[in-house]
Amino acid sequence: MKLLRVGTVGAERPALLDAGGTLRDLSGIVGDIDGALLADDDAMGRVRAAAEAGDLPELDAAGLRIGPPLGRIGKIVCIGLNYHDHARETGAEPPAEPVIFFKAADTVVGPNDPVLVPRGSTKTDWEVELAVVIGRTARYLESAEEGLAHVAGYAVAHDVSEREFQIERGGTWDKGKNCETFNPLGPWLVTADEVPDPQRLPLRLWVNGELKQDGTTAEQIFPVGEVVRYVSRFMTLHPGDVINTGTPAGVALGQPEPKPYLRAGDVVELEIEGLGRQRQELEDA
Amino acid sequence: MKLLRVGTVGAERPALLDAGGTLRDLSGIVGDIDGALLADDDAMGRVRAAAEAGDLPELDAAGLRIGPPLGRIGKIVCIGLNYHDHARETGAEPPAEPVIFFKAADTVVGPNDPVLVPRGSTKTDWEVELAVVIGRTARYLESAEEGLAHVAGYAVAHDVSEREFQIERGGTWDKGKNCETFNPLGPWLVTADEVPDPQRLPLRLWVNGELKQDGTTAEQIFPVGEVVRYVSRFMTLHPGDVINTGTPAGVALGQPEPKPYLRAGDVVELEIEGLGRQRQELEDA
Repeated sequence: MKLLRVGTVGAERPALLDAGGTLRDLSGIVGDIDGALLADDDAMGRVRAAAEAGDLPELDAAGLRIGPPLGRIGKIVCIGLNYHDHARETGAEPPAEPVIFFKAADTVVGPNDPVLVPRGSTKTDWEVELAVVIGRTARYLESAEEGLAHVAGYAVAHDVSEREFQIERGGTWDKGKNCETFNPLGPWLVTADEVPDPQRLPLRLWVNGELKQDGTTAEQIFPVGEVVRYVSRFMTLHPGDVINTGTPAGVALGQPEPKPYLRAGDVVELEIEGLGRQRQELEDA
Repeated sequence: MKLLRVGTVGAERPALLDAGGTLRDLSGIVGDIDGALLADDDAMGRVRAAAEAGDLPELDAAGLRIGPPLGRIGKIVCIGLNYHDHARETGAEPPAEPVIFFKAADTVVGPNDPVLVPRGSTKTDWEVELAVVIGRTARYLESAEEGLAHVAGYAVAHDVSEREFQIERGGTWDKGKNCETFNPLGPWLVTADEVPDPQRLPLRLWVNGELKQDGTTAEQIFPVGEVVRYVSRFMTLHPGDVINTGTPAGVALGQPEPKPYLRAGDVVELEIEGLGRQRQELEDA
């Protein structure tokens, strides 16, 4: 299923994009699309049954804003340098074990909302990523298979990054990863049953129409199941937590000088096959 | 005011410790102690008026668990190496600007709840910290005075840290800071009007009755108002966000070998003058 949330900021209603591409209202069945829903097999069963019965009310998609496809996000764990090609372009050694950093849930915006260039920023960069949404509490998992079994679904994430804040201002990467609007998510949360192999997903990103990233999750150093297993050894993952699993090559940081960092007016588009497409216009904060 | 939350995990009710030391029930006036309450001047006024009128129902404190004093925490921003004496003991240069890392809100437990030594851990360490609770949205603040004006109150935080995960496993410090139960908070959220100078607070921590940390917030490299101002330039702080402002000298990491890291059965007690006292027994995860 393709689950989503539509409406104004903070007042999104749950919806479903059916197999025929029609937008359907889920608000008569579930309160929101969040960790509690994903962890509730009965409620998810009701959603699935209603989707299959085809009798959910239709929503008029015209002019409707798409919000992030998940409400009440707990934490966002991010995996750094998780693509062979991206590690190479940044001059970093492929990490021996996953690199972890954090984004706060309040950085999340809808897939087509504006992204704000922070005040004082000269190095705002793009990163298309496969986001993994956790559906069951994951704690000290033993295997990558177990890891995959705790995934409720997948979405497109844009891990917007300010490289000066991230790398040149002291401390951890978190300083350049948590500016407001720095995590567009969506349009859909695609349930895991519709993504038979998360390691065969093409990812692409364009800036002002020019293709910048053209990768595949096959290049991931640590695949999704292994990432979930690994993270669960260091922290407990809860339903509604998100893992951004890293970006392929092609970010501004990896280009020759002068690096083409983002500025107000630029337009970024990104997509992952089967998971939908985002489009953001950059604005000054 | 000393605000707190009492009851079983996940079902805490709001309460107040009055000037005479009597525990009073706030659940007839407010739903919870959280960012929405702290940002609502009218609701905070009602709490204050009821506290002063002295007619809030008394609660029987006997056997009552104290939970974290804040519900629905957004994010927890942590400041690293923020005490001159602690920077010295770890062999680090005092940072030129604040070091930022993150703890997830789901690491928060009550002040006297057990703390779990992670599986595979040999370097679980203690850190007493002054936690700052944000009461108003803080975005691109200009001055330390403005920073202080966005603080709703203060609490004791225990920034439990696994040093091998933090330092020796690659990536950022977040890997050693987010194990479950790694952020005891409370007992109280003390409103800012009762803390006239947050830079004159003695902090102490004992392990098995032995004094290990005996510091003062006067040693902070970046004082509270400056920390809030600084952080607000890199991310938006929302009501109900928390900043852990760093730890003074005396952690296990700073001791000679063999360093006395925590093990199941150890008891950690910590306090900040005026903000209350915590006591945790270590258990294996």
